Amino acid sequence: MKIVIAPDSFKGSVSAWEACVAIERGIKTVLPEANTVLVPVADGGEGTMDSLVMATRGRVVEHCVTGPLHQAVQAAYGILGDQETCVIEMASASGLCLVPPEQRNPLITTTYGTGELIKKALDDGCRRFILAIGGSATNDGGCGMLQALGMKLLDDRGEAIGFGGEELGRIAVIDTEGFDPRIAQSEFLIATDVQNPFVGPQGASHVFGPQKGATPEMVDKLDRYLTHWADIIEAKTGIRLHERPGAGAAGGIGGAFQAFFPGETKRGIDIVIEHTRLEEKLEGADLVFTGEGQIDFQTASGKTPMGVAQAAQKHGIPVFALAGSVGSGIDVLYQQGIYSIHSIINAPVTLQEAMERASELLAFTAEQVLRTYLASSSYQRG
Amino acid sequence: MKIVIAPDSFKGSVSAWEACVAIERGIKTVLPEANTVLVPVADGGEGTMDSLVMATRGRVVEHCVTGPLHQAVQAAYGILGDQETCVIEMASASGLCLVPPEQRNPLITTTYGTGELIKKALDDGCRRFILAIGGSATNDGGCGMLQALGMKLLDDRGEAIGFGGEELGRIAVIDTEGFDPRIAQSEFLIATDVQNPFVGPQGASHVFGPQKGATPEMVDKLDRYLTHWADIIEAKTGIRLHERPGAGAAGGIGGAFQAFFPGETKRGIDIVIEHTRLEEKLEGADLVFTGEGQIDFQTASGKTPMGVAQAAQKHGIPVFALAGSVGSGIDVLYQQGIYSIHSIINAPVTLQEAMERASELLAFTAEQVLRTYLASSSYQRG
Repeated sequence: MKIVIAPDSFKGSVSAWEACVAIERGIKTVLPEANTVLVPVADGGEGTMDSLVMATRGRVVEHCVTGPLHQAVQAAYGILGDQETCVIEMASASGLCLVPPEQRNPLITTTYGTGELIKKALDDGCRRFILAIGGSATNDGGCGMLQALGMKLLDDRGEAIGFGGEELGRIAVIDTEGFDPRIAQSEFLIATDVQNPFVGPQGASHVFGPQKGATPEMVDKLDRYLTHWADIIEAKTGIRLHERPGAGAAGGIGGAFQAFFPGETKRGIDIVIEHTRLEEKLEGADLVFTGEGQIDFQTASGKTPMGVAQAAQKHGIPVFALAGSVGSGIDVLYQQGIYSIHSIINAPVTLQEAMERASELLAFTAEQVLRTYLASSSYQRG
Repeated sequence: MKIVIAPDSFKGSVSAWEACVAIERGIKTVLPEANTVLVPVADGGEGTMDSLVMATRGRVVEHCVTGPLHQAVQAAYGILGDQETCVIEMASASGLCLVPPEQRNPLITTTYGTGELIKKALDDGCRRFILAIGGSATNDGGCGMLQALGMKLLDDRGEAIGFGGEELGRIAVIDTEGFDPRIAQSEFLIATDVQNPFVGPQGASHVFGPQKGATPEMVDKLDRYLTHWADIIEAKTGIRLHERPGAGAAGGIGGAFQAFFPGETKRGIDIVIEHTRLEEKLEGADLVFTGEGQIDFQTASGKTPMGVAQAAQKHGIPVFALAGSVGSGIDVLYQQGIYSIHSIINAPVTLQEAMERASELLAFTAEQVLRTYLASSSYQRG
C-alpha cells in the first residue's frame, strides 16, 4: 500500500516535516510494510521555503539584511534542488514577526531587506524566483525592495527618499537606470492568495494597514501616498495599479512586482504543489494523509489540506485530514476530496498540552484512521 | 448497510441511550439510508437497569426504601419486557452515592433497602432477578437484605440485631423460618466482576472497606465480624464463604447470595449482552459502534466496549470505539475485536466543555469514522 503524507505545519507545535514523520510512525504501527512518501506542504505562508527546499532536496542560505525597522536581521532564502530556483519568504526579511507589537508602524517599516535577499540570490546565480509575500510588516508599495535593487526614487529636489510608507508622498521621479538588469532576465512567481487592489477602501492600507499597526489617520495617509506612488508608476510605465487585483498584497509589494518584474502571481498552495511535484508523487497512491493545526471554514480558501485534497481528487485517491482543532463550516471540504477530518486531541487538554504532545497525538490518530480504513477491506476478506 | 450502535454511557455527560442517538445522527449524516440498531449497553455498573429496560422495552418501577444510613430513599428497579425478570442496581437502594462523603461508615450502613426492593419485585410477580451489585456503601455481609426478606438474625439473648457492619459481631442464631419462601422459587443472576473472597487480606473489608469510609481500625473490626458471620453461616448451611471467590463482592452481599439464594454469578457485561440480545441484533450487521467516557488499559477487564467487541468478533464484524478520553495500554483491545479507537474531543477543551458538548461531538466523530470506513469501498468502486 502506497500512502502519501502531505501535511502543513501545526503552527507553534510541529513543522510540516515533523508532522510527516509522526504520521508515518502511526501508519507503520499498523502497516510496517507500507510505502510511505513524505511531502511536507505549505500554502504560501510560513513554512513555504522549508517545504520546497525539503521536497526538492535543496538548501537554505542565510543572509544578513535590513529589517523592517531598518535594523540588521538574519534572514534566509532557499535554493531548490535545481540550483536555479530561489524561494524567498518575504516575512524572513520584512515580516511582522520581526517587529515588536508596540513598534508596529507602517509609516516606518520597509521592504528593503526583501530586495537585498533577491539581490543576493541573483548573485548566487538564481534566475527563477518564488516569492511568498505573506506576513509582511510593511505598507511601502515595494519601494524599499526596489531601492535595494538599484532603482532610484527621488523627490522633487532630486534627493533619494528614505524608508517607509511615510516617504512615498515625496516621490517625484523614478530613475530605473541602476535597476538590476538581471531582474529582466529572471522569472518571478509571486505566491499570494490576496486579491485586493493597490488603493481604495479594499486596498492594502485600509484592509491590512491596521494589523500592521496603522491608526485610522495613518491608514488615510498611507492610502493617499500609495495612490500618489501608483500615479507616478502609471506615468512612468503605463501600468495602472490602482484597481488591479493582487496589487495590494503585502502592503503593495504585489503592485511593485506587477509593474517592474517579469512573472506572474499564483495561489500559494498551487505553487507549492507544483514545485513539490505532489501530483507525481500521488501516482499509484492508495491513500493520502494531510493536516494542519486548525481545520475550519477557512480551510476551503486555499489552505494546505484543501490544495492537497484537490490534487488527490484528480487521481481518485481518498484524503484523510488531521487537525489540532476542527472548527465549523467544514462540510464544503467533502466535495473537494477530503473524505474525513479527525482531531488529534484524545482527551480534554489545554492547548499547551496538546501542542507539546502533537507528535505523539498525530501518530496515534493516523494509526486509528488507518485501522478504520482497513476495517473495510479486512471485513470483505474475512 | 446495517450498523449496530452499542455504547455505554459517557459518565457525567450522556446516558447510553443518548450516546446511541447521537452516534446514529452522525451516521445518518453520511448514510441516511443506513439501517441503525440502537442498543444501549452497560457493564453491570451504573446504567445496567436502564440498558436492560430499554433493550427489552420494559419499565421502571419506583419504590421508597430504607437507605444505607437508614433514611428513606426513592429507589427504583426495572421489569424487563418479559414481565418476569427484575433488574436491580443495588446502588439505587444501598449505594455509596446516597451517603455524603463525611458520613461514610460501613459500621453503620445497611443493605436493608436492597432487600426491600427484592421483596417488592417478588410482590410484583417477578421470579427472575438480575442484581447489579456495584457501587454499594455497605459492608454488612448482606445481613440487612436478609432481614428485609424475613430472615431473623438474633443475638445470644434472642434479640434481633440492628443495622450495619457493627452488629454482625453479635449474631448468634440464624432463624430462616420467616425467610421469604418465594426466594427459593426464584432465580438470581448476580452481576459482578469482583472475585474477592469474603474475608482476609483480599476480602471485602480490607479491599473495599476504605473506599466506603472505613479507617484501618474499622477494617480490622469489619473483617473480624464478617468472619464471625461466615462461621455462623457455615454452621447453619454447611457453605463456607470465607475464601470463596466473589463472596466478598459488595461488602459481602455476594456471599449472602451464594449462601441463601438460588442462582449464579456472572460478569456484568456478559449478563447485559445476553439480556439485550446483542448477538441476535448483530446478525447481518456490517459495522458496530461502541464507546464509553474513558477507554484505557482497564477497558479490557470487562468494560462495555470490550464486551461488545468480543460479541461482534464472533460474527467477524468490525467495531469502532468512541471515547471522551483515550488512555494508554489499549493495544490489547485490537486483539479483542476493536478495530480502532477515537476520541470525540475535536479541539483543546476542558473536561466541562467536552461533557457539555458530548452529543454533538459523538455525532461528529461517528460521522468522520464512517466516512473513513467508506473511503475504502468507494475508492474500490471509483
